[in-house]
Amino acid sequence: MSAPLKVSIRRFEAADWPQLWPLLRTTFEAGDTYAYAPDSREADIRTVWTEAPAATFVACGPDEQIIGTYFIKANQPGLGSHVCNCGYVVAPAAQGRGIAAAMCEHSQREAVAMGFRAMQFNLVVSTNERAVRLWQWLGFSVVGTLPRAFHHRRLGYVDALVFYKELVT
Amino acid sequence: MSAPLKVSIRRFEAADWPQLWPLLRTTFEAGDTYAYAPDSREADIRTVWTEAPAATFVACGPDEQIIGTYFIKANQPGLGSHVCNCGYVVAPAAQGRGIAAAMCEHSQREAVAMGFRAMQFNLVVSTNERAVRLWQWLGFSVVGTLPRAFHHRRLGYVDALVFYKELVT
Repeated sequence: MSAPLKVSIRRFEAADWPQLWPLLRTTFEAGDTYAYAPDSREADIRTVWTEAPAATFVACGPDEQIIGTYFIKANQPGLGSHVCNCGYVVAPAAQGRGIAAAMCEHSQREAVAMGFRAMQFNLVVSTNERAVRLWQWLGFSVVGTLPRAFHHRRLGYVDALVFYKELVT
Repeated sequence: MSAPLKVSIRRFEAADWPQLWPLLRTTFEAGDTYAYAPDSREADIRTVWTEAPAATFVACGPDEQIIGTYFIKANQPGLGSHVCNCGYVVAPAAQGRGIAAAMCEHSQREAVAMGFRAMQFNLVVSTNERAVRLWQWLGFSVVGTLPRAFHHRRLGYVDALVFYKELVT
């Protein structure tokens, strides 16, 4: 891990999209962390990342360049809507410098402010060791294992994990 | 359990909706099995139950009356789309007569025919003992427990279970 990088986290604005899309496209193309199809279309990803969620944020480095992003949304409707779901992406060149951790801490505060009581990650790829370690370090528990639920682009079918953390008790 | 009732299961057709909606509304109003808000609007439920899924089926009794229904859809996009998700509803007057079991067996065959490799239920209410027993009897495993993830209308926050079954190995 390199030296932590100080980031400022703010709400996504429409003008950010031209910077955000290459970051998301590169991540999803790899097919090793997110389920979105590696050849997803820009318009579809713009919808799922910036329009469908309750809120979308960007993390900016010292030069104001966007080096990370996350969304937050209810994981289920109605009687399950007190549990939120988030997705985080960090630019490959900026990984290992505490940006995902900073975004996850930020998202937990935002979640509580928005009235959510818990946070759930539905499909954490078991081979994504960096993420698995990080979520555990941040107080999330593995509450389930889904056998071969993720079709990894290089490794084929691999297990996925469900992570959960209660934010309000 | 009363005597099993023989049902015929077929694809949903638009003309079925006036029979289907009271069945779904009654189920969701109870707020003890599904997350859909108890006061959900008809148009929203019609979309989630009959338009958003890959397929919707109805189970008809001897007099052709609709006494059950289920949907089937991919549980995740792209690299998770080989795992399906189903939701089943049985008319209160017809419960305990094997209709959910018949629909679940039917849905597993349909799932395989549609190319799915596994089936996942994301939010089975832990206090819904009938469902918990049935899914286990039909070969599903509890792969996760989500603490207080369901806001039960009578009981408050209760745990929800994640069930999973591999259909192709």
